[in-house]
Amino acid sequence: MFEKYFSKRIKNTPSSFIREILKVTQSPEIISFAGGLPNPISFPQEELKVSMNRIADKFGAKIYQYSTTMGLDSLRQYIVDRYKKIWGMDITIENVIITTGSQQALDLIGKVFVDEGDNIMVEKPSYLGLLQAFCMYRANFVQTKLNDDGLDIDDLKHTLKTYKPKAAYLIPNFQNPTGLTYTNENRKQVFEAIKDEDMILVQDDPYGELRFEEGERIPYIGLNQSEKNIYLGSFSKIVTPGMRLGYIIANKEIIKMIETAKQASDLHSNIFGQYLISDYLYNNDLDKHIEKIKKLYKSQANAMVNAMEEFFPKTVKFTHPKGGMFTWVTIEEGKSVTELFNKAIAKKVAFVPGHPFYVNPQNVNTLRLNYTNANEETIQIGIKRLSEALKEI
Amino acid sequence: MFEKYFSKRIKNTPSSFIREILKVTQSPEIISFAGGLPNPISFPQEELKVSMNRIADKFGAKIYQYSTTMGLDSLRQYIVDRYKKIWGMDITIENVIITTGSQQALDLIGKVFVDEGDNIMVEKPSYLGLLQAFCMYRANFVQTKLNDDGLDIDDLKHTLKTYKPKAAYLIPNFQNPTGLTYTNENRKQVFEAIKDEDMILVQDDPYGELRFEEGERIPYIGLNQSEKNIYLGSFSKIVTPGMRLGYIIANKEIIKMIETAKQASDLHSNIFGQYLISDYLYNNDLDKHIEKIKKLYKSQANAMVNAMEEFFPKTVKFTHPKGGMFTWVTIEEGKSVTELFNKAIAKKVAFVPGHPFYVNPQNVNTLRLNYTNANEETIQIGIKRLSEALKEI
Repeated sequence: MFEKYFSKRIKNTPSSFIREILKVTQSPEIISFAGGLPNPISFPQEELKVSMNRIADKFGAKIYQYSTTMGLDSLRQYIVDRYKKIWGMDITIENVIITTGSQQALDLIGKVFVDEGDNIMVEKPSYLGLLQAFCMYRANFVQTKLNDDGLDIDDLKHTLKTYKPKAAYLIPNFQNPTGLTYTNENRKQVFEAIKDEDMILVQDDPYGELRFEEGERIPYIGLNQSEKNIYLGSFSKIVTPGMRLGYIIANKEIIKMIETAKQASDLHSNIFGQYLISDYLYNNDLDKHIEKIKKLYKSQANAMVNAMEEFFPKTVKFTHPKGGMFTWVTIEEGKSVTELFNKAIAKKVAFVPGHPFYVNPQNVNTLRLNYTNANEETIQIGIKRLSEALKEI
Repeated sequence: MFEKYFSKRIKNTPSSFIREILKVTQSPEIISFAGGLPNPISFPQEELKVSMNRIADKFGAKIYQYSTTMGLDSLRQYIVDRYKKIWGMDITIENVIITTGSQQALDLIGKVFVDEGDNIMVEKPSYLGLLQAFCMYRANFVQTKLNDDGLDIDDLKHTLKTYKPKAAYLIPNFQNPTGLTYTNENRKQVFEAIKDEDMILVQDDPYGELRFEEGERIPYIGLNQSEKNIYLGSFSKIVTPGMRLGYIIANKEIIKMIETAKQASDLHSNIFGQYLISDYLYNNDLDKHIEKIKKLYKSQANAMVNAMEEFFPKTVKFTHPKGGMFTWVTIEEGKSVTELFNKAIAKKVAFVPGHPFYVNPQNVNTLRLNYTNANEETIQIGIKRLSEALKEI
């Protein structure tokens, strides 16, 4: 009935496959590896309750009033201090803007940079939330192949030469959906290839803090070497996602434009949440808290990998995540994950078929499994069910 | 340096005049009538502190976890019940989506309805936040004259015939910036004029609950008579703005599209805030709380009107608000509000010159005054200072 009033951008947005899946998987009988939820036992509930009472007593009406578009200074300062310490970044709070979750960061970057038809490079496969966000600004996506060690450099060079993308969106750490991490060597090659190109590089990093296997944290691509780098971060996976707090770190001129876009989008992010998270961060040891989450996710990831090794047919391949929240499964070529999904639901286990992570999905034989929101026993039962579904396709 | 990467939409967005003004007015010596902030003494701080502890105990991890794009069911149900009771609307929670403040509602409606160059009708003057939001979707604004009793019907008919707008955005109650309210008779005439037109009607209503002078609340334009009506509401002015919670009420098909747009924008609004406000609403008497706010704003509005009557030259006209947060002042034609602004700042009083509320500002001799964020004594001093500035131009 309203078709004729709707904008072209919204009519061209595919209805979210994942949302449809999540409806199917809400039944309590179903073991779901479909979502991307942190384990709720990882939320520092007691500490947050202390903090909320403290900020109510300490700041009074301020935690309820309108606030600035850029975000709470103390929270931005915490981010500055942390990135200075870990990555040696030369930044001030003028380089940081608070966003309503990382998803808003993607929306704002789309608003500020993407004109209709602009070529935007993303990984193949890429995070579907980015595809949705930039779809609203009618980006033309070009996907560059992702290998076990990072971007395929030949494909990258081909993409750069052929499409001259205006921007690239990459998730170098524990990528969503694949769980893969670019090696340091690969990052250097990527930077070498793009550094003289006329393009912005957006690096999204919601999972970087969650390395649970041995190894150092690997520096960002072109870290401290390019003013055209934009870094995204989030408190969703290390404190709480329900507060919807993420941030963008970039050159001040870029942040200023993003501030204008944010003002038009929601004036500012929930200020109570900003006071709350800021108070929590200054009064607790975040690194100690992250250690607990990593320990938890390591055991859950191991449970999933071990179960897959035990039960899956040998023709099925999967990534061995060293951090983050996902593993990426590739079934035999020619077989259909849609068929697998239906069989799996009948056996009361759910996952996300690979389709929504590709710009032009065809003959998809990949799927995403999340291991952070189920305990080890449930993971084992779920993977066993999935292995039975695999035999039926 | 980044100019060439920025999108057309952001390059075409004028830098916010108000933001610049607010920077000037942050000095504590300046009496500011420039903002649009509720009086912080109107926030139910004690009750909210009780609620936050109760939801922490009652719901545990849920108040920190990811949640649904549509928003918390209990909060949506509260809105349904209230609109059923006050306006006899035949709606369910499927007609209601929670947004990150009313500003996000404007952004989402722009996303869903506005293609580049679409004619969008707004009042003259109109809310600048709407102009900013729709500017991002490159709307072509057409402004229809606003009189003391509502829209100028002749100008409305001319606008409809000449521009065939795809949508109209109106604030019928205690409008921002003018403080004016459409009469019931005017609303009927407006509906008569637009009901057979091929257009969506968005009615924004952040101030409707705040009628502090006698008189009934006047029904929306075409209330319960059009599926093409979209209603916006907000908790910012009646509970707390810092939580960034607003909502959209509309036909389900429209809400479904807005849900898709919202998922791409920020996944969902802060869920802690939704639990908090929902708990507050179900455990307190909102109407009683609103009565307190109205009493407060009535005395502040009267203080401002009385002071203007006492001190302003008789050539200066101003609206007599019956609710809401603003009065709109018209100085002698040919005089400059920009000059007045500079003189006023020198005398340590601030306001918003009329410019940002017009699509094509020229020879602007109007200004907006806010009375909700200063006490009666301060209001009197501020208006006296402003009257002295008026003598100097």
